[in-house]
This record gives sequence, C-alpha cells and structure tokens, in this order.
Amino acid sequence: MTIDIDLKKTIDDSYQIHIDALPVLQYARKVAVVTNPTVSKLHLEYLLDRLDAPVVEVILLPDGEAYKNWESIETILDAMFEARFNRSSLLVAFGGGVIGDMTGFAASIFQRGIDFVQIPTTLLAQVDASVGGKTGINNTYGKNLIGAFHQPKAVYADPHFLATLPKREFAAGVAEIVKMAVTFDADFFAWLETADLSDPDALAEAVARSVRTKARVVAQDEKERGLRAALNYGHTFGHVIENETNYTAYLHGETVAIGMVMANDLAVRLGKMSASEASRVKALLQRHGLPTHYRIEDPEAFYEAFFLDKKSADDRITFILPRGIGDVEITDTVRKEDVLAVLSAYAEVP
Amino acid sequence: MTIDIDLKKTIDDSYQIHIDALPVLQYARKVAVVTNPTVSKLHLEYLLDRLDAPVVEVILLPDGEAYKNWESIETILDAMFEARFNRSSLLVAFGGGVIGDMTGFAASIFQRGIDFVQIPTTLLAQVDASVGGKTGINNTYGKNLIGAFHQPKAVYADPHFLATLPKREFAAGVAEIVKMAVTFDADFFAWLETADLSDPDALAEAVARSVRTKARVVAQDEKERGLRAALNYGHTFGHVIENETNYTAYLHGETVAIGMVMANDLAVRLGKMSASEASRVKALLQRHGLPTHYRIEDPEAFYEAFFLDKKSADDRITFILPRGIGDVEITDTVRKEDVLAVLSAYAEVP
Repeated sequence: MTIDIDLKKTIDDSYQIHIDALPVLQYARKVAVVTNPTVSKLHLEYLLDRLDAPVVEVILLPDGEAYKNWESIETILDAMFEARFNRSSLLVAFGGGVIGDMTGFAASIFQRGIDFVQIPTTLLAQVDASVGGKTGINNTYGKNLIGAFHQPKAVYADPHFLATLPKREFAAGVAEIVKMAVTFDADFFAWLETADLSDPDALAEAVARSVRTKARVVAQDEKERGLRAALNYGHTFGHVIENETNYTAYLHGETVAIGMVMANDLAVRLGKMSASEASRVKALLQRHGLPTHYRIEDPEAFYEAFFLDKKSADDRITFILPRGIGDVEITDTVRKEDVLAVLSAYAEVP
Repeated sequence: MTIDIDLKKTIDDSYQIHIDALPVLQYARKVAVVTNPTVSKLHLEYLLDRLDAPVVEVILLPDGEAYKNWESIETILDAMFEARFNRSSLLVAFGGGVIGDMTGFAASIFQRGIDFVQIPTTLLAQVDASVGGKTGINNTYGKNLIGAFHQPKAVYADPHFLATLPKREFAAGVAEIVKMAVTFDADFFAWLETADLSDPDALAEAVARSVRTKARVVAQDEKERGLRAALNYGHTFGHVIENETNYTAYLHGETVAIGMVMANDLAVRLGKMSASEASRVKALLQRHGLPTHYRIEDPEAFYEAFFLDKKSADDRITFILPRGIGDVEITDTVRKEDVLAVLSAYAEVP
C-alpha cells in the first residue's frame, strides 16, 4: 500500500538588507557573535555597544579561508552547546564572507536549524556573500562543496566597517561589483568606469546596485537551477586557482577577477564578446589594482580540476560566458580544445 | 537604505511511503547506497537486483549508534566526491534509523542539498525514522543535536527485511508503534493489546497505522513548533538514558520504552493519567520483551542532563505527558520536585 506524506507549504524566507549605520539591535534571546581576531580587534566594541541581549557569547575563529572547514564549524557548535544555546537562540555573523558562510552553515545544522543575522564587515561580503543564503565550508575536494541554503533573518551593511579595510580587500570587493555589472547591467558597468569609489556616496550607490541586482536574481532562482548560476561568472576558473594555491596566495575576489578575464578570453575566442569589451573589463579591474593574470603550470591538470567543481554536471563543465557587457550565457557545450587553447595562453611566461 | 530580498515561495516536499515488496527502481543518474556490513551481508544482493542506474556505488559505514557522528558523514561525502557525484546524484539510505538519519544529513549538505530515498530495513525505521525528514548525528553533548530537516523523495518499506530482524530489534520497533498509539489513537492501542504482530498482515496493518498517524502529525507541523513535539513522548527520559549508557547498552526503541514508563509515572503523579492506564502500557511493552526499568545512579545528575537536550527551551524542560491513553499534553511547567520524586524511585534497587 502507498501512503502520501503531504508537505506542500508556503515559506517566507524574505528579509531586508540595511545599508546604513548599524542601529541598536535588541534581542530577547541568547546571542552568539561569530567573528575572528582581526575584526574583533577593530570593531567588536562598536558592535557590542549596539547589541542588547540577555546573553552575548563571542566565538572567535582563526582568520582566513584556510580555516573554512569542519573544525571551525565544530568550534562554533561546541561553544553553543557549552553555553546551553537552544532552538530559539540566535547567531550573528560578524566579519567577511568566510565568517558569514560558516556562521550560516552552523546556524543551519545546530539543532536542525536556528536563526542568524549577518553583519558583513568587508566590501565583498556586503555586496555578495550577504545576499542569497548560500552557506558552507571547503574540503580537500574543493570550495563550498559542503553546505546548505539558509537565509539570514536580516543583513546590516554598515559603511563604517569599510573605512578600515586593507586596499587589497577593498579591491577584492570591487571585483564582485564588476562581476554583477558585466553579467546583468551595462549601464552600471559604464557608470563604474567613471565612478570614484573612494567617495562614500558613490560607494554606497555601488553596493546598493550590486545588492539589488543579486537580490533580483536570487529571488528568481534561490537554489541555482538556472539564472543564478550566472553569478558564478569568473568563479569556474577562479575556484581552480584558489584550489591550486591552497586558498593562501589570493583573496577570493582576486581569483574572481582573474577568472573573469579568463572567461572573457574564452568568450572572445567563441565570438560571444568583442576583444574591445574584454579589454574594458580588464582595464576596470586593473584600475582597482586587481590581478588579471595567473601562470598556469599544467593546462590539462587545470582542465581536469573543473570536474571537481560542483557546477559541473556529470561529464560536462558549465561555463558562464559574457555576451558582450551586461548579458551572459550559461553553457555546457564548450569544446575541450577551445578551453585548452585559452588555458595554454596562461601557461606561457607573460 | 533598505533593500527587500523577497523569497516567499511554495515548496512541494511531498512524497510517498510504499509498504510493499520493493519494486525495480530505475534512475538515470549516479546512485550511492549507504548501508552497514550487517544489512549488506543479508540484503544487499536483494537490493542490487532491484536497482537500475548508470553508476551504483556502495558506501559501508560501521554498524551502530556509536558511529552516528561526523566521521561517518565525512566517509559518505568523501566517497561521493571520489566518485565525482554532483548535484543531480542520488543517495539511498539502506538500513535502520541510524543509516537513514546519516544518509539524509549527508544528502542535505552535499553541495548544499541533493535528493535521497529511504529503504528502511528495521521495524523502527519503517514506522518512525522514515517519516518526517529529521536527519542528523550525535555529538558529545547529546543525540541528534546536529542535523537538518531534509525530506526523502520516496520511502520503500518492504516487509521482506523484517523477517531477518533479531527479536530485540523487532521489539524496539514495537516500542515506537506503542508510542504512536498512546499519544494519538486509543482504538489503535486497544487493537495492539490483542494483536499478534508475528502475523504478517497484522504487522503491515500496525506499520501502516503508525505511519499514517505520524504523517498526519508531521504534515501539520514539519519543523516541530507544536504538535510534532508530542512524538517525543518517552524520548526526553530516553535520550538521557542513551547518553548515560553511551548509546551502547540499549537500542533506541528500548530507551523509548523505559522513557514512556517514566513519563507515565510522572503523568500519574500529576493526575493526568490513571495508574491502571499506566499499567496497561507497561504490560503491552513487557509482552513484547521490552525493558521498562532503568537504574538511575544519581537523580540530580539525570535531571541536569535534560537541559542539554534540545527540546528544552532555555531554563525549562518540556515533557510529553499522556492524558490517559490516546491523548497527550506538551508542558514545560512541571516542578523539579515532582520530576525528582519520579526519578528517585528509579534510584532504588528494584
């Protein structure tokens, strides 16, 4: 006999992103702030002055993508169990994308899921990581291969934190802003070519436009079954670079910058983008001090590494290729010889 | 400024439970069967004869609740990465509740969530673990404290597997059947008092009635914010017993049996249940060879351990207490002295 389990349901995972000075946050439940020593030293006092809850635990994780692993998740979970947190407790992610991804993942699996709030302190996290609910960790097979979709209850993107960002980290955030413009918004790209992002108003405008673009895409395709995959522009190549360099040589945004240039080369080769458009993208990235070249030791090995990336279904690799600036194509029909031709150009000493 | 992320959505997580001989299962994608040496030896050939997929990996985990931990999850995930599984691959849980919980959890976090199917081989898993989408693992702080809600795509409960079940494991399944009857269905309880579950038709009827009851509860309250908590009847006490005995002395269903008797004692003490009803429940459990007593070394320590259980919100413990047979009450207002009085009776040598 057959018994139906009827679980059709409507879920409201909507939330708001506040691009403003952090207001006082009041919670009537236990709160744990997850952060790292760098952010803590600079900004923890600022946050605690604005956080009002019966219990506030601070959980420190070592700083860096290299620690985006299960051990760090266990550190978060164990601290919560020690402090007798429960299903109504709240996690606050206070840091960059790494802290956000791990805190969100810990929240998604602690007692089968609790609430979390994001307070991103880097430009990259404000424009990208804080929108969309992707959480997770790396393992030896690659980046973000273990994780969950878990939406935050709210995001507070306070420009205050960006003032102390090292130049390199700021640029890494700009890379994701450029990504959003190239894939979805030609006007935004043209605006970026002349904008001065050291001006706070221009920066807030850039953050807001990026967030709105991403929000529109994620609302249409939360689980990345179609359109959302376009946001991986630059990431297919970038993930392999991060993996080859053990997540230590580059910041995530830097590998995305290189990856976008590689994807553009492939798009130009396949006649989807003009060489002059590819040059405009490269020039914008370089103006912000971003790297646009990576020396590939072994193009065949680089190619093989694509298959470990979760975006590749079975024996095909999915590439995100610009169709000019402001439009994008998701394709898994690129021939290996075309990819290798592009990769081989990076194997030569520049 | 504030930007809205609009993620209201309708989700169809419905699925079917088939209580019948296993049909041939055809899949056009890579499949990994997660099982243990005991089940594999008895039934893997039977399953593989009925499984048609381009790739079938078999992942063996060590047998037992003691291995329901992160190491086993990593074993599953690593095997999948080695075999280049991707987001469209499928996991099959082939075993009892432990295998089902771990396979479901691995499916929920592999590349942020893939499909899984349950083929429960124990009575307990057929009536209980396979309905409701709870997945997870244990840690040093307690049972099922880490996990996710992740619904299977289908459940196949084949009576064939129950024939080889050791007597003790069969009885452990009966404990969950009794739980369902005491909490929600007095007629079902009366039927069980005279039923002969060694008769295949009676057994199928008992499985179906349990599954239907649980399905009704879960459909109303998937995330256990209210009614579903009633299914934890016997578990509040049972989890502490499992924890104190390191998950080795008892089967899960056995601790539920003892836990139900303890919960009944508390209900009788508080005037919610008559002593004769409590005796009927105890007698039914004993007729099936289930334990109904556990020697508590230290009632205070036992009481303290409740607070580590995730069902306890902040400083209160939630108890599920029968109001007679067939009805139940969820309460967090029981006084400590009443609980200690009940626990102390178990501290005496019987």
